[in-house]
Amino acid sequence: MAGDSLATGQRSPGDPAITYPLWPPLTSGCPRTGTAEIAYPVEVDYAYDEVPDDLFRRSHGPSAALDRWAPLLPPLDAPTLGEGGTPLIEIGDGVYLKDESRNPTWSHKDRLNRCTVSAAVRMDAPGVVVASSGNHGASAAAFAARAGLRCTVLTSPDAPPAVRSFVDAYGAVVLPLPQESRWPLMRLIADRLGYHPVSNLTVTHTGHAFGPEGYKTIAYEIFTQIGVPAAVFTPTGYGELLFGVWKGFAELRRLGLAERTPRMYACEPAAGAPLAAALRQGSPAAVVPVGPTSAYGIACSVGGYRGLVAIRESGGEALPVSDEEMAAAQAELARQGVWAELSAAAGLAGLRRRGAVDGPVVCVSTSSGFKDLAVGSHRAEPVEPTWEAVSRRLRAARITA
Amino acid sequence: MAGDSLATGQRSPGDPAITYPLWPPLTSGCPRTGTAEIAYPVEVDYAYDEVPDDLFRRSHGPSAALDRWAPLLPPLDAPTLGEGGTPLIEIGDGVYLKDESRNPTWSHKDRLNRCTVSAAVRMDAPGVVVASSGNHGASAAAFAARAGLRCTVLTSPDAPPAVRSFVDAYGAVVLPLPQESRWPLMRLIADRLGYHPVSNLTVTHTGHAFGPEGYKTIAYEIFTQIGVPAAVFTPTGYGELLFGVWKGFAELRRLGLAERTPRMYACEPAAGAPLAAALRQGSPAAVVPVGPTSAYGIACSVGGYRGLVAIRESGGEALPVSDEEMAAAQAELARQGVWAELSAAAGLAGLRRRGAVDGPVVCVSTSSGFKDLAVGSHRAEPVEPTWEAVSRRLRAARITA
Repeated sequence: MAGDSLATGQRSPGDPAITYPLWPPLTSGCPRTGTAEIAYPVEVDYAYDEVPDDLFRRSHGPSAALDRWAPLLPPLDAPTLGEGGTPLIEIGDGVYLKDESRNPTWSHKDRLNRCTVSAAVRMDAPGVVVASSGNHGASAAAFAARAGLRCTVLTSPDAPPAVRSFVDAYGAVVLPLPQESRWPLMRLIADRLGYHPVSNLTVTHTGHAFGPEGYKTIAYEIFTQIGVPAAVFTPTGYGELLFGVWKGFAELRRLGLAERTPRMYACEPAAGAPLAAALRQGSPAAVVPVGPTSAYGIACSVGGYRGLVAIRESGGEALPVSDEEMAAAQAELARQGVWAELSAAAGLAGLRRRGAVDGPVVCVSTSSGFKDLAVGSHRAEPVEPTWEAVSRRLRAARITA
Repeated sequence: MAGDSLATGQRSPGDPAITYPLWPPLTSGCPRTGTAEIAYPVEVDYAYDEVPDDLFRRSHGPSAALDRWAPLLPPLDAPTLGEGGTPLIEIGDGVYLKDESRNPTWSHKDRLNRCTVSAAVRMDAPGVVVASSGNHGASAAAFAARAGLRCTVLTSPDAPPAVRSFVDAYGAVVLPLPQESRWPLMRLIADRLGYHPVSNLTVTHTGHAFGPEGYKTIAYEIFTQIGVPAAVFTPTGYGELLFGVWKGFAELRRLGLAERTPRMYACEPAAGAPLAAALRQGSPAAVVPVGPTSAYGIACSVGGYRGLVAIRESGGEALPVSDEEMAAAQAELARQGVWAELSAAAGLAGLRRRGAVDGPVVCVSTSSGFKDLAVGSHRAEPVEPTWEAVSRRLRAARITA
């Protein structure tokens, strides 16, 4: 263990003068700056001047997981599953792949959920609730099970069956619901059952304030692996991963350990691409229609403010990539012995679209190719999108006792 | 990098006086002691007195992979995928899970294949050939792709479709063949095409001499994580993993770093259980009928001599476990947030069958729950079990140019 959390509170990334205590986590974003159209997220602040000098040099156990970075994370009250500590694999010409399929539920989401489920434990919640058709739900279910909490996953009726088998395996209650009903019902489950929400509760994206803190550890690890790269390309949906990785490097600069941050490239499915739209419009977040795409893990109609911060502050770009470009990147990775989910290959697809970058480049590969499999044998019964139907389903699962 | 390999040659585990040079790897076992009924494997020997004093203490990069242990492994000529370095997760009452689903192709087989594909590279083979219906084939395909070698996987027509999609992803040629035809055809592919065999070529099991060397690193990691446990329970098919983990601890004792080895428990599907049969019969290896079982990853009709060495030398046991016991262990792991393949849960099933052990216990969980999924959409066309049909299929894949 690296010691206790140095987290001091929550603040608005847009206006550092606006601060809140650390508890409770503001799962609906910043109450002072949010409007009906745009929600602004909050982020966690730390006593940076108390960070141990040797935090980034000290040796650590082989199962150190996120605990290695405890001073720069919110309190880690949920037990670990050995998340993080993933390898960086050189794939030629100074390009490295950060293979996040090597996490406990085989995606980057485990870094986020160690932090958000820890918040649920600290808040003494009986369970967690998450809206997700993919990796986020499975990861939340695993960390909730490990912590002895209930988990309810609001998913889409057409979510990939492989992922659904996976969520079921951890004993979560899966509620397949139409997209537009998921967030209002999630708020009801949070309000009426006291479940802690570990994903978004707002119109434009804010997410859980503690989530990107977990993603910061990707930057910390890259720093100990190869130093500061010239650029990082991440698969991008809401932009939480993008923001988290950028924040990690920004903290390294703030701590005097790095001279600069890498340029951050948001690799979004061209079928939607809300960050590219927000940059074009000059708005803090955009809502866009989403066309057909197989990159279900990152196909988002709403963006968030945090992703824009990372792109603007780092001198990066939003790079929409087509399904064909992602498939080509996926095939390129397979020839290197790495089988990635289609969405996970968006980072490399973005690099190939942009062309060569001078200096070492890291592409984050978020998840395993297994996630895309069309199992076909595990279709969950859809649930009517009303509180009555949802609470009936929860009672059947003995959730509300 | 930890330096060069100190491997000096190959020797018979049964008679240390029988030695061979390191090259070529004896993929058909020991030519001097083998008979028509029983094949004896060989293993790799090292210049143990030249092992650096601080090998088990020195700090290492976060992507050190097997290279960290290079002095005690055969030469690692194939490029790494960041294999090994998996977490040890405490699941209560002094029981730890070594989560091997955190490897590059999400199973322990990656440790073996880094070593065996390295041998293929050193031997200048144009490709590798492997008989496998599961994780071994996928892992060999990934390491072969990474090394720029061809790969042919001889699989069973009823292999789980999820695993088959997986092997295909790395560009291997998959040849579904009846069980009894797989080994003779594998030998033909090795002889006629010069492919390096990375799985078994013999009647009773010998496997590749370099394979268990990769598994030794599980013992090295456990030693740096918690020291020497009282017992290790491993899912057991041919017994290569069991032997490799035991050999790693035996080397630690030989190097003066440990005082004892853990008791090694071979957890075999009760439907077959060749090691239990060999122990009962007092023979060096047994051939048994295999009844119905869903633990396809470890359902073997033939055993091998190496597994018996590990059990006898360590004071362990063979523990046949039923599918129901494995399913119960799988459910227990899921409640802890770990989704394991059914076969992978055999280690914990064996511990539960045996009852509490005094002192820390490690159960090895070999692979991810994704491997069991019945995808159903990716059925490969069976191939007629003749050399003519096989070479036609290979030519169609432009393998023999």
